[in-house]
Amino acid sequence: MPGVAVSIDMGGTNLRVAIVDEKGEILCRILQPTKPERGRSKVFASLTEGIKEAMVKAKAKGLEPLGVGIGFPGVFADDGVILGAPQLSDWVGFAFLDALRAAIEIPVFVENDANCAALGEYWIFRGDLPDTFVFMTLGSGIGGGVILQGKLWRGYLGSAGEIGHIPVEPNGPFCGGGHQGCIEVFSSAVGLKNLIGRVLDEGVASPFLSAFKERSPTVTPKDAYEAAKQDDFGARRLFERFGEYLGIALASVVNVLNPPAIVIGGNIANAWEFFAPSILPSLKRHTFPYVAERLKIRKAGLGEDAGILGAASLIFAKEACLP
Amino acid sequence: MPGVAVSIDMGGTNLRVAIVDEKGEILCRILQPTKPERGRSKVFASLTEGIKEAMVKAKAKGLEPLGVGIGFPGVFADDGVILGAPQLSDWVGFAFLDALRAAIEIPVFVENDANCAALGEYWIFRGDLPDTFVFMTLGSGIGGGVILQGKLWRGYLGSAGEIGHIPVEPNGPFCGGGHQGCIEVFSSAVGLKNLIGRVLDEGVASPFLSAFKERSPTVTPKDAYEAAKQDDFGARRLFERFGEYLGIALASVVNVLNPPAIVIGGNIANAWEFFAPSILPSLKRHTFPYVAERLKIRKAGLGEDAGILGAASLIFAKEACLP
Repeated sequence: MPGVAVSIDMGGTNLRVAIVDEKGEILCRILQPTKPERGRSKVFASLTEGIKEAMVKAKAKGLEPLGVGIGFPGVFADDGVILGAPQLSDWVGFAFLDALRAAIEIPVFVENDANCAALGEYWIFRGDLPDTFVFMTLGSGIGGGVILQGKLWRGYLGSAGEIGHIPVEPNGPFCGGGHQGCIEVFSSAVGLKNLIGRVLDEGVASPFLSAFKERSPTVTPKDAYEAAKQDDFGARRLFERFGEYLGIALASVVNVLNPPAIVIGGNIANAWEFFAPSILPSLKRHTFPYVAERLKIRKAGLGEDAGILGAASLIFAKEACLP
Repeated sequence: MPGVAVSIDMGGTNLRVAIVDEKGEILCRILQPTKPERGRSKVFASLTEGIKEAMVKAKAKGLEPLGVGIGFPGVFADDGVILGAPQLSDWVGFAFLDALRAAIEIPVFVENDANCAALGEYWIFRGDLPDTFVFMTLGSGIGGGVILQGKLWRGYLGSAGEIGHIPVEPNGPFCGGGHQGCIEVFSSAVGLKNLIGRVLDEGVASPFLSAFKERSPTVTPKDAYEAAKQDDFGARRLFERFGEYLGIALASVVNVLNPPAIVIGGNIANAWEFFAPSILPSLKRHTFPYVAERLKIRKAGLGEDAGILGAASLIFAKEACLP
């Protein structure tokens, strides 16, 4: 029987379960809402039921579930006890890995969701990526993952790669997690509104910015992207600023680690053409020129399946993620 | 014959050569001025003569020189070709390691000076330090070194650990190396004057600050330290700000790598009592609380011999520094 992974991308909104084969093909998907407000024990029960359902489906297809890989939206130490989870706050202190291992009869591995996305990218594009790179995912927030010499670098408390919280305007506004002036405050879906404020402060005017002033709560990153595609000057300037802020945060990454490459994914990476050209000039102001010039900054190859594939790589490419 | 290392700390001011034994004892020192203005070939000739003199001295004492370790004030790739050297600008492009190996008959190793200081600290205090830590040296500029799981992390172009250039005020003044608003602009000997400006901007007044206004070019970090010891409010506030800026830069380090410890050395670390208490509160504003609370921030154990001992560790503790 061909072996498969049961792979889970746990988000604050959706619990996505998939069956993934050893080549990274997604053979089957189960989607259910997470509804964190139900409380931890109900969410945990949904999760284990989803896993068992996927295992039954796999067996029905003549496939052998080899293990379960889970991308979790939070941080936990090596023992699997959750230290922080912004969208699942009642999970802090929960011995997640122990509970899973008690409930599921096949091997279970858990990793932070952004670390999973980095691992997914590395697993699928291994031939095309250096063995060391820093991954950044731009969504409602900003996550990251650090791959050093072919292995995920988790850090002391599993909190390495939290590059969304690198300060870029140390006296600036706070993010939802309480970090002051971090890159997430600006170059994320949630942060885009702060950034529009900055562009308005510059005195920039445009149809997009006027629309924003009228109906700010409903303006989305997609609206900004569409406006930029239609040459709206304000939207273009917005993405320039977006890239400039990214350059500042990535300068810190480069000064600490000097990786050969930075890989940027997540939903907002779709606006790559508008923000990417501004990253390097900004980064160069804060790093050595010879380092900036030889740094590869590239768009991630995987879209929203990065996390689920990374979770599968916890089973199929263990050497990259186990200590 | 007991084996020894010939160990060199090359600075823009002094060329310090020493004979170091396998326990880290410095048995003999030779000091000569560097005088970079003489040009590269003369400085290089002084260096190789100093090495040969030390080798002769070692043999005269019945010691066997096993190798030469050099801490160099600049950055070079794995091939030993110099990529950047702020104090020795005509050395850029020089195949330093090849030239040394042609001139010296015993094995020669070169490492960045701040990386050497990190390695020296790790070699001498190994039992007392975790195997992963980030080292920061506060002198006229700021250098750094990253030790991951017992090995120096050099980065793609030998430029990892350049934590002195982490931006902390991205639109702020430029450092001597042309980086805008980096931590070196504030929390270094050279940066202290910018920082005094910030304290004056806050409207703080004190005898030390008045003296600064009168004779700014001659005020030294030592003057600030002495004033702080005498309870001068302005000098105390100055070191608070010094620590606050360090906290911002170290937050970037922590968000990227989540090391268990940060070790801070260099001359200005002598003012530890006055700036260290301000680091953590500032760092906490920019990292997860559970990470900040479990981070050890400690003063380096070695003083100005850190570099020379680290250079010796290139011979005696190779496992920490070779690929």
